[in-house]
Amino acid sequence: MSGAFELAAWSAERLARVEQALSQWVVADAPAGLGEAMRYAVLDGGKRLRPLLVFAACEATHGDSGAALRAACAAELIHAYSLVHDDLPCMDNDILRRGKPTVHVKFGEAQALLAGDALQALAFELLAPEGDAVPAAVQADLCRLLARSAGHAGMAGGQAIDLASVGHILTETQLREMHRRKTGALLQASVMMGAACGAAPPEANAALQAYGAAVGLAFQVVDDILDVTSDAAALGKTVGKDAAHAKPTYVSLLGLDRSRAYAQQLLGDALQALAASGLADTRALQALAMMVVHREN
Amino acid sequence: MSGAFELAAWSAERLARVEQALSQWVVADAPAGLGEAMRYAVLDGGKRLRPLLVFAACEATHGDSGAALRAACAAELIHAYSLVHDDLPCMDNDILRRGKPTVHVKFGEAQALLAGDALQALAFELLAPEGDAVPAAVQADLCRLLARSAGHAGMAGGQAIDLASVGHILTETQLREMHRRKTGALLQASVMMGAACGAAPPEANAALQAYGAAVGLAFQVVDDILDVTSDAAALGKTVGKDAAHAKPTYVSLLGLDRSRAYAQQLLGDALQALAASGLADTRALQALAMMVVHREN
Repeated sequence: MSGAFELAAWSAERLARVEQALSQWVVADAPAGLGEAMRYAVLDGGKRLRPLLVFAACEATHGDSGAALRAACAAELIHAYSLVHDDLPCMDNDILRRGKPTVHVKFGEAQALLAGDALQALAFELLAPEGDAVPAAVQADLCRLLARSAGHAGMAGGQAIDLASVGHILTETQLREMHRRKTGALLQASVMMGAACGAAPPEANAALQAYGAAVGLAFQVVDDILDVTSDAAALGKTVGKDAAHAKPTYVSLLGLDRSRAYAQQLLGDALQALAASGLADTRALQALAMMVVHREN
Repeated sequence: MSGAFELAAWSAERLARVEQALSQWVVADAPAGLGEAMRYAVLDGGKRLRPLLVFAACEATHGDSGAALRAACAAELIHAYSLVHDDLPCMDNDILRRGKPTVHVKFGEAQALLAGDALQALAFELLAPEGDAVPAAVQADLCRLLARSAGHAGMAGGQAIDLASVGHILTETQLREMHRRKTGALLQASVMMGAACGAAPPEANAALQAYGAAVGLAFQVVDDILDVTSDAAALGKTVGKDAAHAKPTYVSLLGLDRSRAYAQQLLGDALQALAASGLADTRALQALAMMVVHREN
């Protein structure tokens, strides 16, 4: 509890474990080039925000770090698979991701489809290891949280709303609902998976739910802002693509200034939830919320 | 144990529960047409072989039928999602399935992609319900079995081999390995998920593994035979498509007569495994193995 909290150092230590674990668990020996495509989609890229949220929530609730490592990697695999499928020609038809050719550009559409499918299955496989290193009750909780956030009530459902919304004007309520599912659900689930590795009392759990919801939405608001204010080199992906696809965004709905104010308000909500959580040390969670809102890519 | 075993009556009772449960669990209210596409992909169609294998193995090991119902539906959802993705233009580009337009023909490619993704997530969600109706240890076992059979070491890996094998001549060993993953893994996992709902002693578990492997492979050998001997009306899907796609099959490798003999041999292996299992009543498992080999569609 004493001393200044250094997010960079805290993150670096945890990300080193995540990268090593992903490199071990995302198998190179899957047959017929599938492993290569899976590794390309997952390794050496991305902010790893979801793994960091898992660790931060796990540590705040004094959870088991072995279980958290599995949950962190599983959340990242779901995120990675969603990007692979999102980039496909029948979806966003994107050719650049994290500054590199997208998976289907490099490996072909069929292999990209399969790699995404296999990454989703692998996420659940990681959560249910044999033996008793992770208690069965924790395994079941993690599978439940991840499955709900990835499926029709979460990410996939948000994508469907996104598809249907192209060229339409959404209300702020509709836009929030889309993003709550599409991006927010998995970010919030990452927080709750971290908490499921520990033993948070009910009031702390409720506070972490609120924190996760605010951070999840803030992430998307900032994403919408960066899509119009950043350049491809900083962002590592195509910019201005939401406008090009006539997709509704917070910026198109609220304008830039009100979008920025909204992101700040959500940051305030997240920090307030932590303050009311009763948890002794939430510095990593606080720092991650600030990073989400103040990031430049 | 007394009286003749009637597979038709036994199946009808279980399938009624499966259809009702699928109709309840595959949500119509998923947003923006996603639920409609998911239901179209799953309901009113298919032999439901995987659910029947789950129930048969569960009953042979005196397992919990509530857990088995979830496992049965989860296995069917994985099967259904794989068909949706398989039929996409970048894979088999098929327009007919179970006598109806395929999901992407009816709902568009993007929605079909998402429906498949959401069905996979829903499968794991079904296996990890809240509360203690299904013990956490059973939930974890079911998630592990299903994830392994669906991912790179199972179905998705088999698909990758399938993709890479088009236009190539495979050895019998390579063909068996492809089918062991592509179709066999999920059929075998269905048997083992049924057993995981019960409490089979280790020797029974080993026997059920062998049974599942033999039935899984027999299913594919018969599939290859029907692809050349059946017609579209009986099969409910495009016939002769393996040959049209220059895909290696048992018939192209062994010829029709040796393929039929091989299917009979696998049936013998499956029945022998059951006889050695020490389980008291394996009549449903026996009848399903015979149905797999003697089916006409």
